[in-house]
Amino acid sequence: MESPVENYLHDLHAEIVQNRNGTVYTPGGAPSSADPDCFGICLATADGHVYEVGDTRTEFTLQSISKVFSYALALSDLGFDAVDAKVDVEPSGDPFNEISLAAGTGRPDNAMINAGALAVTSLIKGSGGKSAIKRIVRVLSDCAGRELSVNEPIFEAERRHSDRNHALAYLLRSFDIIEDDPTAVLENYLRHCSVRVTCRDLAIMAATLANGGTNPVTGVTALDLAPVERVLSVMMTSGMYDDAGAWLTSVGMPAKSGVGGGTLAVLPGQIGVAVFSPRLDAHGNSVRGVATSQRLSRELELHFVRAARSGRSTIRTSTDITELPSGIRHPEEAAAMLAEHGHRARVIELSGDLLFAGTESTLREVCALSDEVQLVILDLRRVDKVGAVALRMLSALKHSLAAANRELLLIGTEGTATETLADLGPHVRAFDTRSSAVEYAENVLIARYLPALRVQTPVPPADSPALSALAPADAEALAGRMESRACDDGEIVRRVGQRFGGVFFIVSGRISTIVTGPGGERVKLTTLSAGMTFGELALGSDDRQETTEKADGPVQLRVLSAEAIAQLELDDPRLAVEFWKALTRDAYTRVDQYLRETAVRIRD
Amino acid sequence: MESPVENYLHDLHAEIVQNRNGTVYTPGGAPSSADPDCFGICLATADGHVYEVGDTRTEFTLQSISKVFSYALALSDLGFDAVDAKVDVEPSGDPFNEISLAAGTGRPDNAMINAGALAVTSLIKGSGGKSAIKRIVRVLSDCAGRELSVNEPIFEAERRHSDRNHALAYLLRSFDIIEDDPTAVLENYLRHCSVRVTCRDLAIMAATLANGGTNPVTGVTALDLAPVERVLSVMMTSGMYDDAGAWLTSVGMPAKSGVGGGTLAVLPGQIGVAVFSPRLDAHGNSVRGVATSQRLSRELELHFVRAARSGRSTIRTSTDITELPSGIRHPEEAAAMLAEHGHRARVIELSGDLLFAGTESTLREVCALSDEVQLVILDLRRVDKVGAVALRMLSALKHSLAAANRELLLIGTEGTATETLADLGPHVRAFDTRSSAVEYAENVLIARYLPALRVQTPVPPADSPALSALAPADAEALAGRMESRACDDGEIVRRVGQRFGGVFFIVSGRISTIVTGPGGERVKLTTLSAGMTFGELALGSDDRQETTEKADGPVQLRVLSAEAIAQLELDDPRLAVEFWKALTRDAYTRVDQYLRETAVRIRD
Repeated sequence: MESPVENYLHDLHAEIVQNRNGTVYTPGGAPSSADPDCFGICLATADGHVYEVGDTRTEFTLQSISKVFSYALALSDLGFDAVDAKVDVEPSGDPFNEISLAAGTGRPDNAMINAGALAVTSLIKGSGGKSAIKRIVRVLSDCAGRELSVNEPIFEAERRHSDRNHALAYLLRSFDIIEDDPTAVLENYLRHCSVRVTCRDLAIMAATLANGGTNPVTGVTALDLAPVERVLSVMMTSGMYDDAGAWLTSVGMPAKSGVGGGTLAVLPGQIGVAVFSPRLDAHGNSVRGVATSQRLSRELELHFVRAARSGRSTIRTSTDITELPSGIRHPEEAAAMLAEHGHRARVIELSGDLLFAGTESTLREVCALSDEVQLVILDLRRVDKVGAVALRMLSALKHSLAAANRELLLIGTEGTATETLADLGPHVRAFDTRSSAVEYAENVLIARYLPALRVQTPVPPADSPALSALAPADAEALAGRMESRACDDGEIVRRVGQRFGGVFFIVSGRISTIVTGPGGERVKLTTLSAGMTFGELALGSDDRQETTEKADGPVQLRVLSAEAIAQLELDDPRLAVEFWKALTRDAYTRVDQYLRETAVRIRD
Repeated sequence: MESPVENYLHDLHAEIVQNRNGTVYTPGGAPSSADPDCFGICLATADGHVYEVGDTRTEFTLQSISKVFSYALALSDLGFDAVDAKVDVEPSGDPFNEISLAAGTGRPDNAMINAGALAVTSLIKGSGGKSAIKRIVRVLSDCAGRELSVNEPIFEAERRHSDRNHALAYLLRSFDIIEDDPTAVLENYLRHCSVRVTCRDLAIMAATLANGGTNPVTGVTALDLAPVERVLSVMMTSGMYDDAGAWLTSVGMPAKSGVGGGTLAVLPGQIGVAVFSPRLDAHGNSVRGVATSQRLSRELELHFVRAARSGRSTIRTSTDITELPSGIRHPEEAAAMLAEHGHRARVIELSGDLLFAGTESTLREVCALSDEVQLVILDLRRVDKVGAVALRMLSALKHSLAAANRELLLIGTEGTATETLADLGPHVRAFDTRSSAVEYAENVLIARYLPALRVQTPVPPADSPALSALAPADAEALAGRMESRACDDGEIVRRVGQRFGGVFFIVSGRISTIVTGPGGERVKLTTLSAGMTFGELALGSDDRQETTEKADGPVQLRVLSAEAIAQLELDDPRLAVEFWKALTRDAYTRVDQYLRETAVRIRD
């Protein structure tokens, strides 16, 4: 199906293509190679998807857009201080070819005007057997994701008509801003301005900047994050020649235009935008480039004040563990204790981004908890981005809690959350699932408030919760029909797809329950311990085992086999009724528990 | 517990308070009332929480910070075009008191320099019996959330030493930029500059801007969104006098400083920052204000290029309805059809923000679906913000799908998602729960692929799925022990807390299952239809009913009461075994279904 994004871009293109205002840039009066009617729009997302409309495969020269990348390369090579000493970061408000040097020092206002770009180019040296210009073209190619090259005829035409830039280079040399041969610097500068790109290339270059310097299509890291962020900041005020304020209010994205007809704009983290249309306005910006950018910014809400509005994290739920227990069935004494003390462990489920605002609201929620809450469990499984600030703040939270003998626990499986866990150090316990975290919390509370129960003792099947509703004699009679089985660590007791093989009672040890996720991956669902049962679930799925059950360490089992159950029904129908009734109750106890969980989830 | 955010601010305050550089502003050489050592830091979140450290309750004058609010008021009063005709939006790069007027027109560069602010003040007229200055102070007070007033002695001192601004006012009048009496305009201007605030006030004013013009503490809408966004754009380049570029690279938030010692900075949608410290640098910015803002921006990641990186929506899961069925039990024929055709209905679960990037990735996922998918269900329950662009794009998606005889369905309960639904028009079906949406999809597929089943026919209990594993004679024998019951629309059949009353078989009609959420609210969990059963769940919760069951329209039931079951166990133990075994299977069918759902959820 055609995407509404594409349809939208087609409509926008059809509308703006009508605008034939402006004049084409012709270096030294030579006719430009580009058809003045060309018009392409390209959007590339920070995850590498490209939308193209119009003339997106026509080549043109980067011109001033190359300044963005040479500036980033110089910042990477020399560091911010050395580059800042030569070129300032202030908007000049002057036309691109203005000789705007600071009085006394000769320092150009910024790297987006010609004087600043010449100074920046002079800072980039050859390295590793590659000339400076080769290194610049390498960065440009890495950002575009294909091999770019200089348009030599255009370069020659530019060079023949570069008297003003030549003067500027000498002037910069007179202030020692440029320390090399001004003519060589000028030629390198004109060469990177003459690199050929398409509108599609330009969009991918913009998406590379949006993606923090890594090309989202090829995966190649072309630039580091810090210089990219600096360059985007300078582009915000100085990328559109002397039209900075109007651009900032009407488009509000870091951008750069070139007299070759290209316009590149970036919404950090999200989108790269490129427009190609050769006719220029009085500022030297592409007429259709500006018009398209304004429309895209407004209609797709890409302006920085809108884009920054997003990204708050949300506290989805905050529940104590009595509302959503682990599902582990505890002896009555422990269950009563948990009903009384369960509010001392609290699970807070977060979603969205954990940058400052999201972290702050999380900390606020935690700090407002009663001091009685001894275990604070943050469920990070639905968190998207975790900023460095979140790590620092969560680390501070961990220490504050620890100082009061309280503990911070995390739930999180993969991606950023895992990194969070690792960076918070080994003293923060992390769990894959909510139920395993809650189980841990229940055990901590049991150890604290019922220390006598701490040691795990074998549970004979007659004492298991599943049979707790039976008369003791009935339970013993059922136990007498069971066979014993011992399992080694890692042994698969039941496997997905096996036929119903009876009901398995865990006497001692632990069993992991594993299911197959939608992608075929194996997911550990829960851990069963002494007193608990498994195997009955096969009854719910056409008598086929739906989960795999694996021994976690040595396990002692008692099994009421399918055959033993059949025999029981023949020998003692009354006891069989009691047995099935007990299993029904046990099954509905689980349904009930899922239902409670659903009620919590539904609230969101 | 003390918040790590507060601790962080305390540490930062203790560090920066050591910096005693800079000189205090003294209008006309008169000593300032403020203690030069004063230092307060305040953070206010866009939801109205305030963190304060240091001298946050000391009053000082707004000075140039008032220009932000007078500009917003003028934009609200006259519209953008009328204000733009008098004052440009370009960074001037000049000191605040520079006479920077455009050659020929006399138009000031922007509203943050004195010339621009004087012009803006002249545009604000009295209205509704309130003078212009009263109206400005009203807006300032609404933004601060308390009644502010002019510091008359400071105003008088300012007026006595305002020759330069007086000259500027006359000059603006000579260009017809100011049309009123220049002295009266100057006095209004100096009055709003002399309004007294505390650092706390300033933070709430910043949070009001961050919150789009509505004071997050009082809930009062002080300004509209559009002028706030425009003002923030201009502040980005022109708020910090001639230090715009350094500010943008090192802080990267829209901001405004005043020579009274205040600094206000805004991260749109998230945070308002205020610093008060009277000692100024050569630009006229507070020394500690700049230092604090730089540290906060870096350490809390508030810079616009970082902040904009967040807020992508994520596709949490994408599953067809065979992976996660509604839970409605269908006749065998229908179940077989759904196994074959269930891939034609797909549920895509989203989270995060639906601005352009999030919407785009959603559309991309939908457009990549096979044409065989006839029902696309977007689960929006975990979506935070829905931008206007998302509404437009989803609307386009709806039309594209409809044109191919495919349907877009939504799941979403409250807040932004509901607004989305309303704005997408009555032709988009919306559901509260996933299971109700999937149930609808199953019914559409049944109507399409098994039209014979479309008419709901009564299902005698012997034909219900719960008893399907029994021999027909056994099922009939059980049916013979049931009593009939008819319910009217809205009748409560079972209520939370009732004792187990037997198993209820729905012969015709529909029953709603309602649970109580954690907040005490009533949540509809699912709808049961003919052939389905209820009441057994009470067995799982100490024989107490856990859900409320309510008739949706007239309902015919057959009930195997608790007494009838007890009698059955006495009369016919073999049949009782079969009955309980059937119930056990039925319960585990539900457990199995929840387990599958969990496996899908766990993947995130």
